[in-house]
Amino acid sequence: MASRTVSAHGALRRLFSETRQHSRARAAPLSDADASAQSMPDASPAKWHLAHTTWFFETFVLTPHVPGYRVFDPEWGFLFNSYYEAAGPRLCRDRRGLLTRPTLAEILAWRTHVDTALDRALDDLPEAARALVRLGCHHEQQHQELLLTDILHLFSENPLAPAYAEGAPFPAAVPRAAHDWAPHPGGIVAIGNAGKDFAFDCETPRHEVRLYPFALGSRLVTNAEWAAFIDDGGYRTPTLWLSDGWAWRTRDDVTAPLYWRREDGDWTTMTLAGRRPVAPAAPVAHIGYFEADAFARWAGARLPRESEWEAMAENTALSQMFGACWQWTESAYAAYPGFRPAAGAVGEYNGKFMCGQFVLKGSSCATPPGHSRAAYRNFFYPHQRWQFTGVRLAKDI
Amino acid sequence: MASRTVSAHGALRRLFSETRQHSRARAAPLSDADASAQSMPDASPAKWHLAHTTWFFETFVLTPHVPGYRVFDPEWGFLFNSYYEAAGPRLCRDRRGLLTRPTLAEILAWRTHVDTALDRALDDLPEAARALVRLGCHHEQQHQELLLTDILHLFSENPLAPAYAEGAPFPAAVPRAAHDWAPHPGGIVAIGNAGKDFAFDCETPRHEVRLYPFALGSRLVTNAEWAAFIDDGGYRTPTLWLSDGWAWRTRDDVTAPLYWRREDGDWTTMTLAGRRPVAPAAPVAHIGYFEADAFARWAGARLPRESEWEAMAENTALSQMFGACWQWTESAYAAYPGFRPAAGAVGEYNGKFMCGQFVLKGSSCATPPGHSRAAYRNFFYPHQRWQFTGVRLAKDI
Amino acid sequence: MASRTVSAHGALRRLFSETRQHSRARAAPLSDADASAQSMPDASPAKWHLAHTTWFFETFVLTPHVPGYRVFDPEWGFLFNSYYEAAGPRLCRDRRGLLTRPTLAEILAWRTHVDTALDRALDDLPEAARALVRLGCHHEQQHQELLLTDILHLFSENPLAPAYAEGAPFPAAVPRAAHDWAPHPGGIVAIGNAGKDFAFDCETPRHEVRLYPFALGSRLVTNAEWAAFIDDGGYRTPTLWLSDGWAWRTRDDVTAPLYWRREDGDWTTMTLAGRRPVAPAAPVAHIGYFEADAFARWAGARLPRESEWEAMAENTALSQMFGACWQWTESAYAAYPGFRPAAGAVGEYNGKFMCGQFVLKGSSCATPPGHSRAAYRNFFYPHQRWQFTGVRLAKDI
Amino acid sequence: MASRTVSAHGALRRLFSETRQHSRARAAPLSDADASAQSMPDASPAKWHLAHTTWFFETFVLTPHVPGYRVFDPEWGFLFNSYYEAAGPRLCRDRRGLLTRPTLAEILAWRTHVDTALDRALDDLPEAARALVRLGCHHEQQHQELLLTDILHLFSENPLAPAYAEGAPFPAAVPRAAHDWAPHPGGIVAIGNAGKDFAFDCETPRHEVRLYPFALGSRLVTNAEWAAFIDDGGYRTPTLWLSDGWAWRTRDDVTAPLYWRREDGDWTTMTLAGRRPVAPAAPVAHIGYFEADAFARWAGARLPRESEWEAMAENTALSQMFGACWQWTESAYAAYPGFRPAAGAVGEYNGKFMCGQFVLKGSSCATPPGHSRAAYRNFFYPHQRWQFTGVRLAKDI
Repeated sequence: MASRTVSAHGALRRLFSETRQHSRARAAPLSDADASAQSMPDASPAKWHLAHTTWFFETFVLTPHVPGYRVFDPEWGFLFNSYYEAAGPRLCRDRRGLLTRPTLAEILAWRTHVDTALDRALDDLPEAARALVRLGCHHEQQHQELLLTDILHLFSENPLAPAYAEGAPFPAAVPRAAHDWAPHPGGIVAIGNAGKDFAFDCETPRHEVRLYPFALGSRLVTNAEWAAFIDDGGYRTPTLWLSDGWAWRTRDDVTAPLYWRREDGDWTTMTLAGRRPVAPAAPVAHIGYFEADAFARWAGARLPRESEWEAMAENTALSQMFGACWQWTESAYAAYPGFRPAAGAVGEYNGKFMCGQFVLKGSSCATPPGHSRAAYRNFFYPHQRWQFTGVRLAKDI
Repeated sequence: MASRTVSAHGALRRLFSETRQHSRARAAPLSDADASAQSMPDASPAKWHLAHTTWFFETFVLTPHVPGYRVFDPEWGFLFNSYYEAAGPRLCRDRRGLLTRPTLAEILAWRTHVDTALDRALDDLPEAARALVRLGCHHEQQHQELLLTDILHLFSENPLAPAYAEGAPFPAAVPRAAHDWAPHPGGIVAIGNAGKDFAFDCETPRHEVRLYPFALGSRLVTNAEWAAFIDDGGYRTPTLWLSDGWAWRTRDDVTAPLYWRREDGDWTTMTLAGRRPVAPAAPVAHIGYFEADAFARWAGARLPRESEWEAMAENTALSQMFGACWQWTESAYAAYPGFRPAAGAVGEYNGKFMCGQFVLKGSSCATPPGHSRAAYRNFFYPHQRWQFTGVRLAKDI
Repeated sequence: MASRTVSAHGALRRLFSETRQHSRARAAPLSDADASAQSMPDASPAKWHLAHTTWFFETFVLTPHVPGYRVFDPEWGFLFNSYYEAAGPRLCRDRRGLLTRPTLAEILAWRTHVDTALDRALDDLPEAARALVRLGCHHEQQHQELLLTDILHLFSENPLAPAYAEGAPFPAAVPRAAHDWAPHPGGIVAIGNAGKDFAFDCETPRHEVRLYPFALGSRLVTNAEWAAFIDDGGYRTPTLWLSDGWAWRTRDDVTAPLYWRREDGDWTTMTLAGRRPVAPAAPVAHIGYFEADAFARWAGARLPRESEWEAMAENTALSQMFGACWQWTESAYAAYPGFRPAAGAVGEYNGKFMCGQFVLKGSSCATPPGHSRAAYRNFFYPHQRWQFTGVRLAKDI
Repeated sequence: MASRTVSAHGALRRLFSETRQHSRARAAPLSDADASAQSMPDASPAKWHLAHTTWFFETFVLTPHVPGYRVFDPEWGFLFNSYYEAAGPRLCRDRRGLLTRPTLAEILAWRTHVDTALDRALDDLPEAARALVRLGCHHEQQHQELLLTDILHLFSENPLAPAYAEGAPFPAAVPRAAHDWAPHPGGIVAIGNAGKDFAFDCETPRHEVRLYPFALGSRLVTNAEWAAFIDDGGYRTPTLWLSDGWAWRTRDDVTAPLYWRREDGDWTTMTLAGRRPVAPAAPVAHIGYFEADAFARWAGARLPRESEWEAMAENTALSQMFGACWQWTESAYAAYPGFRPAAGAVGEYNGKFMCGQFVLKGSSCATPPGHSRAAYRNFFYPHQRWQFTGVRLAKDI
């Protein structure tokens, strides 16, 4: 029993240490100005990600659970609370780019302060607090992904198209490009977290759903296939689109995936290594739900349901289920039967977003290690495109 | 066989005649100006409803299926197409109130022209065209409901609060107000149209879903209960609300159901008979999804899923399932497994709205006769409140 | 003395009677729906003009000055106050089109009620009240012009392009089209109302200004000249435009005067007689300040200053100074030296608009008889185009 | 002749050197992130000011006039052109805060590159180019003022209210606070640049205007007087306001000067030294034209006309004419009689802004040395408040 506790303690300590270290590594190529800018309300400055994840540990773990812990700066809570109503007021989301102070160096000093305190306290924390540490690490992993996608967006707005780093992540092509269909017989299947490993509250409870026979594409839709959709007038054909999608496409004059630009007849796209030619065999990325849905209709197919994707993922090896692009499903992000939000302020983590968003399954090239699983539920609004989001087709059989 | 056809023909003729007549009756209390005004983009002028439903029969039945039919005015198609991309361009939705011409009298003359032509042609129409006539009647019934709710909204904007008609529909209270819970054991249940009667495409195909044990409220939430929610600070407590809901509430400074106003300490509301005191035992109406969801959380309950409501409706007699208020469910409006949109332009009728809207079940006091059924799927955006929309609670058991 | 009073009384009675009658005549071609619609916030329904001008007499003359006068409907003051803060709260300007009640017939009955009461009281009114009657008549003449321009805008929004009346006013061409320059030596000149005839407060006091030698165009700029500006890329050349003008042009994608549309290579425009070909020799109308200014720069000229126009008008006969199109000047609408707003609520009539607007001189084809004079100061924002507004060029000499 | 040229050359070299040095000094307290952020579309990042003023010399002087000059980075012209249409396309004004690259260090290197090249070329430049150097210096002085006011705005948005520098400029009180009236007899006076010293094109030509007797306040309105206006309900009394002003006040819920905040009953304001108590005897700053106009009406006075202010400044010593706050006049910013924009792209410098803005006279505590003169014409929109803008009263006598 003791050894099991020790080993569990060691695992959490390692998770905490690696997660905190990984955030610093992702911020390393950025200047103070890079880390402070906010390119749109959906995105946050890199510095803010570094600070907010630190605020999480300070607010939910250190302050309530570690006697004598000294808050690094009591004024910063207002600045780095994201949306926790129960944790007090906060800076408007779209003003995060105005925080040129505290500086990046001050934020890194805060991180050290918190890391040191938590490292010292970890073994003595009650189990509830340790669960919050674990939650905080997975929360920070989410922000690690956002840090990259937010920087990509920021740099895409700069006419100089700066590179974040040469060897930066990108959605990789699979060797053999042929698209095939993987069938599933349907029936009663169980989805949701099975209870052994970490899960966010919205992944629970595991429950049964009734599926009808279907098939999923053996790989993601490629850039070459998307270019064919464009060439065939996909963006100009209203009957391919949802009503809201066509209104969005028209209002914003959308004619290609985010970041695509035609230069001298050839498509380029913005990447973390700067502006590059679009790779035909690579999976299309940075498309929204509206476009994914229109493409699927054009292709005579449809988008997967969340339950279909997950049932398949638990049983069948398919290419690019994880690590390339998040995959839009036609399932609205909603509560599973019997869902209970986590207790306390962290109960605001997921449940209050269950409106108007669609579930994405899998993970992307920007997802940090240890953050991919079949039951994972990512979610975004249908017009949002700055994540590494792609499409896997589905059909009834 | 002949007699069955005759009887089917007679039923359709009667449906058509009664539907067309009922629209005229609903417009009877309105002046030309009343019938021409548009109080918000979501609403349409009464004259437009009368015209659009007529355009439907002319465009989809008479023109393609009745040789020699003379279009009443070829310029009007542009004016009265709602959203059928396949049927050509059309006036922007938010400019319908600028059509002071054609006059109400001219629209009524058009109706007579179309009614006469269709009446003459009905018996000889091919079955596909007859199906479109049937669809057109149900489509017109939907607009009959909108005609009333749109006029209610228009009159609510007039500081004089004019009455549409003295005996106009309103959501009635049930005699015994006590709230109880009706249990359902869950399991595998079938929902969706069973195939015998008319249904919109989105109600099909009938299919199985896996339900967990639940209970529904024995009646709708009342105005008195809603007033208690207000008095308890329901509209001021962010943790009761979805994130988007709280943003909506804050931006629009929402503090009560649409049309409610406190005068000398007492609530009044706008009705089709003018401004009246809020009736405590009557079901609350004109609330949006965001409010319904917040109320349910405040009450320690949740909103029903569409499948739960429908499974219950097929087996159990509950008060106010139909004819009082549409009932918000927590189910996003989405395609049933195996859903196929209707062929042709009318395939745009439902499928293209499957994004961002929530299903409402039942029917309201403004729903015309013959338009209520358990499998019916109404849908609106979560902020929309000008329909007679209310709440029935649900909970897991 | 007595006879002079009698004659002054007779003149005011005639002015009142003719003015009131003329408004009815202008509304005669309109249906109840036509008279109730509002096509943009800048415009008002015809019914509203009829009511507001009546409210003016009731509120500022009858109620305070006629003992025993019975207000027609006490609820209507809120509806038909335009912007007089001192006269109480009022309906938002952009919601005037929602007043389908009171009906046009009810408004006309109100007019009769007020006309009868004022006719009976007129001879016994104190001089201050008689001055308000005179002001009310000139105020109503302004609304007579707006009634026509607002209806023109409403009908222009209707794809059917209905005609208001066959013989309706339009800006007429002058027989000989040659453009010449009329010189003025400058020096010290006096402008503003000279005190004998009626004037709005903003036209006073008469005062001296120092002018430098200049010349004015002998006639207004024609449609043919404007078409040449278009053909020469006038709307695509940013260096011709004011900074705000170019931003406006770009945001609204302005490429021609309001109402102009190219059909099969030829320009048409909306008129009170329906859509018609653009007449080359007629003065260009429905252009804003930004366009007028850009045109003048393109033509190597400039717009007149208000004082230049007025000094010229008092001494020289020039074509189209009155009765065709209002003429943009480069003078911001501002207080004359020594300006004092009229006493009481009517002091809000002019002074509070002295910000961001430009003075237009002359009058237009829609200006009613008796409303044109050299010292008159009309004013609109630089982007506004729905009045009959045109250009007369000026230059330094 | 030679010695005069040498001395003129020396003066220009000194002006250039001191101006360029002064910009660097103003940026010295800023971090890379501080210098890169943009807090609103009206403001620009400090880095952008440093770059844009450098671009001016490179584009208008070095490239056309210095053979063999090597442009530092050809891609940067697009980034740092402000609004010169003739100088090519440019980054949208509201996206300047996204330019985290080039870094502050790179911009400073560019400055050195340009300074070195210009220093070397200065003596051999033709007179036209030397005039552009002089213009560029005065242009840079304007940006030096904006650099401070933009940083003040940025820091005011940061809840931490950081200080730019301890000894930073602020509008100073005059020793004796009594307000008196300085009379002027009016008559024909000449205003505008008299031709000896540098002037922007809009300050010319000098010309006569006819003034009526008036008086100006002997000093600026103080914070204590403004607080009395607030306490007397000045911000809640619509009849004190211009119509557009009241709409602005209501929409933005304006209740005090920009940066004022009431804390525990006392007013504080944001300064370049951080948040500080409002000093009663200091001149009120950061008020817009709408507020200035309302205050003057409340005080039974009016705002000065530009010509009145300038005529007084040329003849009478009054407190705080320069160096405290820019002073709103009621004069719209417009062309002087005979005005000709400067030739070439720099002709866009002033003329194209002559619409919708009001002239401010004097100078402020943030105005750099050598940039104050009686004929100077500053101009802003009536709602803009982030400059050091105040009020001097006027009245007719």
